[in-house]
Amino acid sequence: MMALSKAWKLTRRPVGMPAIRDFTLVEEPVPPCQAGDVIVQAECLSIDPYMRFKAGILPLGSTMDGGQVARVIESKNPQWPVGSYMVTQAGWRLTTHLSSERLQTTDFWQKSLQLPDMRGLPMSLGLGTLGMTGNTAYFGLTEILRPVAGETVLVSGAAGAVGSVVVQIAKIKGCKVIGFAGSDDKVEWLREIGADHAFNYKVVKVGEALKQAAPAKVNCYFDNVGGKFTASVMPYMAFGGRVAVCGAISGYNKQEEEEEGAMTGCFKDSDVIWNRLRIEGFMFFEFEDRWMEGLEQLRDWILEGKLKYKEYVVNGFEKMPDTFIGVLKGSNRGKAIVMP
Amino acid sequence: MMALSKAWKLTRRPVGMPAIRDFTLVEEPVPPCQAGDVIVQAECLSIDPYMRFKAGILPLGSTMDGGQVARVIESKNPQWPVGSYMVTQAGWRLTTHLSSERLQTTDFWQKSLQLPDMRGLPMSLGLGTLGMTGNTAYFGLTEILRPVAGETVLVSGAAGAVGSVVVQIAKIKGCKVIGFAGSDDKVEWLREIGADHAFNYKVVKVGEALKQAAPAKVNCYFDNVGGKFTASVMPYMAFGGRVAVCGAISGYNKQEEEEEGAMTGCFKDSDVIWNRLRIEGFMFFEFEDRWMEGLEQLRDWILEGKLKYKEYVVNGFEKMPDTFIGVLKGSNRGKAIVMP
Repeated sequence: MMALSKAWKLTRRPVGMPAIRDFTLVEEPVPPCQAGDVIVQAECLSIDPYMRFKAGILPLGSTMDGGQVARVIESKNPQWPVGSYMVTQAGWRLTTHLSSERLQTTDFWQKSLQLPDMRGLPMSLGLGTLGMTGNTAYFGLTEILRPVAGETVLVSGAAGAVGSVVVQIAKIKGCKVIGFAGSDDKVEWLREIGADHAFNYKVVKVGEALKQAAPAKVNCYFDNVGGKFTASVMPYMAFGGRVAVCGAISGYNKQEEEEEGAMTGCFKDSDVIWNRLRIEGFMFFEFEDRWMEGLEQLRDWILEGKLKYKEYVVNGFEKMPDTFIGVLKGSNRGKAIVMP
Repeated sequence: MMALSKAWKLTRRPVGMPAIRDFTLVEEPVPPCQAGDVIVQAECLSIDPYMRFKAGILPLGSTMDGGQVARVIESKNPQWPVGSYMVTQAGWRLTTHLSSERLQTTDFWQKSLQLPDMRGLPMSLGLGTLGMTGNTAYFGLTEILRPVAGETVLVSGAAGAVGSVVVQIAKIKGCKVIGFAGSDDKVEWLREIGADHAFNYKVVKVGEALKQAAPAKVNCYFDNVGGKFTASVMPYMAFGGRVAVCGAISGYNKQEEEEEGAMTGCFKDSDVIWNRLRIEGFMFFEFEDRWMEGLEQLRDWILEGKLKYKEYVVNGFEKMPDTFIGVLKGSNRGKAIVMP
């Protein structure tokens, strides 16, 4: 008899903000473990805003996409013995068959990665500060924005999984840091982690806040949200400013039917040219070659007390959709993790 | 008695498309030539789209800004003997006093530059293909976009002063080149200078043209126009695509009163992130250190028959405003020059 796994399927295409009814919890068979394969069990699952984009493009009936820290429970692959741990994009699923081919993929997104030596830190960090989100912050700041000490760095979604790491690395690098987040307690957390100025974008005028906090304008903008917020920031970019576009959470819920040439973007050609801006989209997998370097640097900063993290842990695999919707609504504090 | 010079003053703030009545032709005294100074006489004057931006910000009563090739007619500066030629930002003016301080400025825009050795080519090229516009094309393509042979390069405003040089350099570099311009005879000119595909954006659907001409999408987009045209191009950018934002002519006439956060840009955060685009504004003066290198390479390509140019010459200093408005309306063929 085949083993069964619980999995969350995308069964309705979300319109705007996803709803619980867009997802269905099913039990499905786990294929047998053959030569080169492993079977892994989810130890903790990641919930991230990008999943909203996935929910717009995954074929209906698919398991929702997502990362997890998983433990090998059955193995016919000597590289992954029973009991070893991995970070893997196994989706919203408890027990997962990873084929030999899958384990050898060159598609970084689908790769199963070893955790760094955690030196006693919780393994769930492999889904956040010591994983994709940490390295997104690390490489996005140090390689895309390349701030110089003394420059002003603005971070949107600054209390989030990526943003809060960006804020702290920018401080380590000697920058003045301005963070925007969506609630007063997130603003409080931004002050705790060292932001020089922190604002609740829901209660301030972005322009007025920046006139006060960045009189010499913004050199580097690490953009986790996009949309109207980013459009509001653009007039305050310094000459020669750089924008790292990491997320566009505010646009994930938008419907996509526009006529050709519709001017609905947050970046204007006139700002780009007159302020000589560089706007660059990037994703963590561009830095695959230096993956462990990033994770080990981040781990060392945590161990040295220079880098704080906050996890928002929800218990219960049945809470995956609620947690996801909560993240899109901004109700999480720190990296959202579901412990099954 | 002081010498007098004719000059065109900006006397009304243009609303939308500038009108003749926004400018006034005056006679004004030329200050005396003192130690270190020179007096220069305009030999040919440049008309460029960026002047629309200047017309929006220059204090009313100012001489309109602009470049000219000028001959030194009086000199108390050994570096610039009488009879020597320069390219200088003396504005819409026939006779200009350049002070010792002005001649030593470190502001590239205000610098008086020597012409390259023209080897018999017309001096007016110093305002175009062998001047600011040529180097804008040269460095924008080779340093900002850095296309690789075989890549697809899209050029908007491709028949213009900058665009037509970009098209030809991209061909020299082994790229597939798609040009868009605003009339059938400009399209004809694009074919003459080697564009693989040339379209009149006023009569084609941009998306349909690109589906046909760039089935593998666009790697490099040299953007001279911005606005709706650029918004139409963005869905056809390839993964890892690069956009060099050189001009935003379509937006120069726009009024600037928008509420904070208005989403009226041609670049969307979602395109930037999902296609991992790099969008970069640049101006020719960033490449000051390599100025003569660019001009000499361009001159050599002209002499070798690899680079064609077209000038649109208007006679009569009194035609400056008409010529300017004509350029904004797209009625020029090639680089617009006024011979006083």
